[in-house]
Amino acid sequence: MKRTLFTCMLLCFIGSLWAQQHPSLLLTREGVAEIRANRGKVAAFDRSLEATFAGAEKALQLPIVVPVPKDGGGGYTHEQHKLNYYYMFDCGVAYQLSGEEKYARYVVDMLLAYAKLYPTLGFHPMTLSKTPGRLFWQTLNESVWLVHTAVAYDCVYDYLTEKERRTIEEQLLRPVADFIMNGLEGNCTNNAVFNRMHNHGTWATAGVGMIGLAMGDQDLVDRALYGSDKTGKNGGFIRQLDYLFSPDGYFTEGAYYQRYAIWPFVVFAQCIDNNRPELKIFAYRDAIIPKAVATLTQLAYEGRFLRFNDALDKGYDAQELIYAVDIAYNADPSNKQLLDLAARYQQKFLPTDAGYAVARDIARGEAEPLSFHSALYRDGRNGDEGGVAAIRSTDPALNSLLTLKATSHGLSHGHYDKLTLAYYNNGDEILKDYGAARFINIEAKYKGHYTLQNKSFAMQTVAHNTLVADQRSHFDGKIKESSKYHAEIVYTDFSQPEIQIMSARETHAYDQVQMQRTTAYITTDFLQYPLIVDLFKATSETTHQYDLPFWYGGHMISLSFPYEKALTQLEVMGEKQGYEHLWREAWGKNTTSNTTTFTWLQRDKFYSLSTATTPDTELYMVRAGANDPDYHLRGEDAFLVREKGRTNHTFATALETHGTYDLQVEQSANLTASCREVKVIYDTPEATIVRVSFKDGQQVTLCVAWEGDADRRYRIKAEGERFEWKGAYHLVQNK
Amino acid sequence: MKRTLFTCMLLCFIGSLWAQQHPSLLLTREGVAEIRANRGKVAAFDRSLEATFAGAEKALQLPIVVPVPKDGGGGYTHEQHKLNYYYMFDCGVAYQLSGEEKYARYVVDMLLAYAKLYPTLGFHPMTLSKTPGRLFWQTLNESVWLVHTAVAYDCVYDYLTEKERRTIEEQLLRPVADFIMNGLEGNCTNNAVFNRMHNHGTWATAGVGMIGLAMGDQDLVDRALYGSDKTGKNGGFIRQLDYLFSPDGYFTEGAYYQRYAIWPFVVFAQCIDNNRPELKIFAYRDAIIPKAVATLTQLAYEGRFLRFNDALDKGYDAQELIYAVDIAYNADPSNKQLLDLAARYQQKFLPTDAGYAVARDIARGEAEPLSFHSALYRDGRNGDEGGVAAIRSTDPALNSLLTLKATSHGLSHGHYDKLTLAYYNNGDEILKDYGAARFINIEAKYKGHYTLQNKSFAMQTVAHNTLVADQRSHFDGKIKESSKYHAEIVYTDFSQPEIQIMSARETHAYDQVQMQRTTAYITTDFLQYPLIVDLFKATSETTHQYDLPFWYGGHMISLSFPYEKALTQLEVMGEKQGYEHLWREAWGKNTTSNTTTFTWLQRDKFYSLSTATTPDTELYMVRAGANDPDYHLRGEDAFLVREKGRTNHTFATALETHGTYDLQVEQSANLTASCREVKVIYDTPEATIVRVSFKDGQQVTLCVAWEGDADRRYRIKAEGERFEWKGAYHLVQNK
Repeated sequence: MKRTLFTCMLLCFIGSLWAQQHPSLLLTREGVAEIRANRGKVAAFDRSLEATFAGAEKALQLPIVVPVPKDGGGGYTHEQHKLNYYYMFDCGVAYQLSGEEKYARYVVDMLLAYAKLYPTLGFHPMTLSKTPGRLFWQTLNESVWLVHTAVAYDCVYDYLTEKERRTIEEQLLRPVADFIMNGLEGNCTNNAVFNRMHNHGTWATAGVGMIGLAMGDQDLVDRALYGSDKTGKNGGFIRQLDYLFSPDGYFTEGAYYQRYAIWPFVVFAQCIDNNRPELKIFAYRDAIIPKAVATLTQLAYEGRFLRFNDALDKGYDAQELIYAVDIAYNADPSNKQLLDLAARYQQKFLPTDAGYAVARDIARGEAEPLSFHSALYRDGRNGDEGGVAAIRSTDPALNSLLTLKATSHGLSHGHYDKLTLAYYNNGDEILKDYGAARFINIEAKYKGHYTLQNKSFAMQTVAHNTLVADQRSHFDGKIKESSKYHAEIVYTDFSQPEIQIMSARETHAYDQVQMQRTTAYITTDFLQYPLIVDLFKATSETTHQYDLPFWYGGHMISLSFPYEKALTQLEVMGEKQGYEHLWREAWGKNTTSNTTTFTWLQRDKFYSLSTATTPDTELYMVRAGANDPDYHLRGEDAFLVREKGRTNHTFATALETHGTYDLQVEQSANLTASCREVKVIYDTPEATIVRVSFKDGQQVTLCVAWEGDADRRYRIKAEGERFEWKGAYHLVQNK
Repeated sequence: MKRTLFTCMLLCFIGSLWAQQHPSLLLTREGVAEIRANRGKVAAFDRSLEATFAGAEKALQLPIVVPVPKDGGGGYTHEQHKLNYYYMFDCGVAYQLSGEEKYARYVVDMLLAYAKLYPTLGFHPMTLSKTPGRLFWQTLNESVWLVHTAVAYDCVYDYLTEKERRTIEEQLLRPVADFIMNGLEGNCTNNAVFNRMHNHGTWATAGVGMIGLAMGDQDLVDRALYGSDKTGKNGGFIRQLDYLFSPDGYFTEGAYYQRYAIWPFVVFAQCIDNNRPELKIFAYRDAIIPKAVATLTQLAYEGRFLRFNDALDKGYDAQELIYAVDIAYNADPSNKQLLDLAARYQQKFLPTDAGYAVARDIARGEAEPLSFHSALYRDGRNGDEGGVAAIRSTDPALNSLLTLKATSHGLSHGHYDKLTLAYYNNGDEILKDYGAARFINIEAKYKGHYTLQNKSFAMQTVAHNTLVADQRSHFDGKIKESSKYHAEIVYTDFSQPEIQIMSARETHAYDQVQMQRTTAYITTDFLQYPLIVDLFKATSETTHQYDLPFWYGGHMISLSFPYEKALTQLEVMGEKQGYEHLWREAWGKNTTSNTTTFTWLQRDKFYSLSTATTPDTELYMVRAGANDPDYHLRGEDAFLVREKGRTNHTFATALETHGTYDLQVEQSANLTASCREVKVIYDTPEATIVRVSFKDGQQVTLCVAWEGDADRRYRIKAEGERFEWKGAYHLVQNK
């Protein structure tokens, strides 16, 4: 009897101990012991710890300042509250790793200061957001605050007095969680966000779930995992895992926001895995979290994320990626490529179990080279809403990446850029995506928000390397329309060393115009570098003006015909849908040749884009920057091909990379294009044949069947030659 | 008697042996022995040797092609003849270092091919140069060809049959030397160049002298050393050493051409030192050659040469610098900083005695950190023609460089840029110099020559950070006038940690306007980074329009008053002297404050330029690119301050570097300027006092005595305060 009671008490005690064990979010007792035991043994990790301790020391030297919220992003109170959660995070971790009480005291004092302030707050005084926060101008930042604070709270939990704990939980942590989950003053938008299948919802569930775990509040954890009604049917983290990534681990807003979206996923997942291992969260949905991390690392060039949709210049060194890489590796230490990524691009590690594992295994020499491969990343929860196709050079020394985007809209950060192409080579953006028009955190630039030009220019179709009909953006730039549809990847074939190819179709962007683009990356034995052949087919029963811009990075070298350039006065290209932002720098028609070549220089390579034109084709050099009263736009440059009064038209373009240009030894070779002619020798709704001819007589002929049927046979006669093939495409090289 | 005869014969034999020893130009027998003995021991040097051998092997695999000259720079025959001398050089060296006959054979065969072609050549068919060559469009390239060929010839000399030697020397080498020294067909411009105090003359003397040494032709060597009349009074290498560098080792065309000019100096000097050690050539004129190398390494920022005058983007990794650094170190191995430069920026070594010495001593760990210091580099043979003053941050972590240029014109590569300022910080060009408008070797860009816009824009005053009166360039852009005068460095003082200062004067650029600029680099204890205070004084008895442009690198962030920006139409700023190339992007007057602040962002730092203005001051944002029909200009940006109808005016400007901007963790601080006011509180022809006030009440007051007399005392009352000081300047900081 006694023994049974004792056992029962013991079990209860152990059970409660387990539930209450601290730390257990990003640090564990075992992890803390291992990290403490190995101080001084893994230099790179020690440096990261030093940064954490330095952050904690800095915090200790400053007075605790918990200001009444006033400013927006980049402003004083906003930045101070951000600093505060980093201070708490650093001090909490420092307490665990050193045992020094001063760090714990700091966290507690700050939490008590917040506990005093928070109940006095209504909504933030700025009213820029539909989901205003209380400490911050938007609830999103409040959720991020809670994620960091939960980690700090977990670290100092055992240090708190019962009274402190009660004050902090009742006056601060539960109210914050409640606010994030349910809103305030009858404003329920927060509840909608909490349950929404959106990355803001993930931050909300992560914050609430993590503070639930830290406080041992089962109910909060369940609501975070399964939605505020706890059914799992109307919201929650698990459902977000089902909805927010495609089966290929692609996040619909694109790489830049996948970077941001991944953060709460990996952080909360780590906390869940530490506390609810039975959920096997990292294996959930065919290991969707590790897969999303892997896909994100592939959607980058030279460590910088691809710039499509709203995107700034971020990469593997972003703090989110440190979380993603460390936690993904900790979850699956067989992925040794992540070590290479961490070693080459980050050299910073989470001051946690996961960060230590990465640093330790790099030091043990376990890293394997990060490798890239051509792939299709399908969009949509079920992988049936188009996707991004990416061709990588098979020879890694070439370091080329060619992408074709044919996704769904991409929520609020999507651009009207169906079938846009981007080309990266030699470390540079060659055919560029503008990305976002935003100066994050810079008050002088529209308070750091997306500028008005993000919508009026950066999102518009003409700002991208894709077709614009009648100077109107896809879906007329209406997100509601665009969000109803998605483009379609017709096929990709990356299996042949001689040719990698991808084809995508868009049939909803314009009422009367159907579009399909097929782009191939072709290796020849006579050109210095591979050749890109790009066919863009517009089909319509009515006549239209078709514009195909190529936004390029580098300095304009030459155009192959006599053109006019604005000398004393620059005019704009149009009045709306992005055209009002384009200066018309140069223009002309090529009346002497059926092929127009534009050459530019980027770093030490030349790029020559040769395109089939007629004497009626209008050619323009344009530059972004008109109608931009506050210098919000970067002055990017484009070469624009315009065909007027066409029903059907197929743009045929060959892009050659060439040239050796060494300024230091003043040696140069191959600075002019080899391509002499790009000629469409056959063009029907079924198939198009383009022939690219070079100066020494070589020819590359690409036959494209637009349907993309792998089994269908084609037999075509063009220019006196017979072309026979089976399947979606056929390549003929004559040397 | 017998013994005497024997001794005499022996001495003669030794003498002749000495004179005839091969190799003895860049390689010596001792050097060859040491390099051969140490193959495989110094990895970095082995890599350079591998490159040489790879070059030689590549040559061997290609047919020998010695085309009839036809093309200009970048064109086929031009590049082929350049390749040929590199091939010969590599094969010659490879023969010495391996002893393998195939390499020697290649050199001989190519020389024989040239010996067949050369006598058939008149002048090069292109007629772009006043000194046309025969193999190349200009004799300059022919001299460079001869320098390389001399090294190759020296390497294979002992391998040649007597007949081959005679053919090569009589049909090729002597005729080339003769052509370079004396010209052809009655055209004596080459003779003038050979004897001219100009770097083209140095190439000519080096080529002729080196081939003279290789052939053992005393007469040619003497003419190279002492001019074609051998007197030393009218030309020659020794005289060039007297004339072409200032006593501070500064070459009048500026750093970019000093890089090029130094090449033949160090190469020929090495050959002289090996063969005529008694001349002590490296010690000549207070060691002017090593000094010129040291000065050149200082006239750089982050390894890139300062961009003033005609300059492209070149730096320590340029091939000339490999020659300069290796040979200078070999001449004086006590300069261990050169090892650091070679290790960090080059990692390439000459395949010669000198290159081996550098690589060996780096491997031995002898490098000492390359260090930079504030300095004045005087211009002019006697150091009395102005100079370039350069202030370096004393804290190397700051990595700042501020230059004030007040030199003589700088021969044909000089710009009309008296008193121009440049500021480099954080690895970037912040206040920029346009440099040259040229696309070297790119046929499509004016055949690779300096473009017309180099003269119409890049050289003009408005393209620089200095004063333009009445929209006219200094000396009206006339080189003949400009070359008669030089600006003057009034004083520099780099001795105080709190303030480094420099002052320069220009009194000839305009008939009626005198100019003086005093610029200080001031360290405060309240600003994040040092403060630059810049006073530009224009003095005149007649009224003028004064324009002071600041060409900046980075993105425009804000102007502190409501300005207008061109929205749908861009116009040009003027019609001539560079103004015709400026687009007028934005403009306005600041009617609400006496201080105008312009802020821009470059990388992760903000730069705020605050300048004293009145409601009449016109402010412009301009951009280069108008009247540029062939895209020869880069689209650089400037902030331009215009004062109209002034007799005397002092521009007072404070440039603040500030801000922490980390996009990866989205943390930012200090993104707006601290400066609130820049006010000239006293301004007479004798002295000016400027007060810069900051947001928290701090003030920096700089008192400047324009005369620059170190001993004079000043007592001035301004705004109710008394200022007393002795000397050229006085700094008061109120905190």
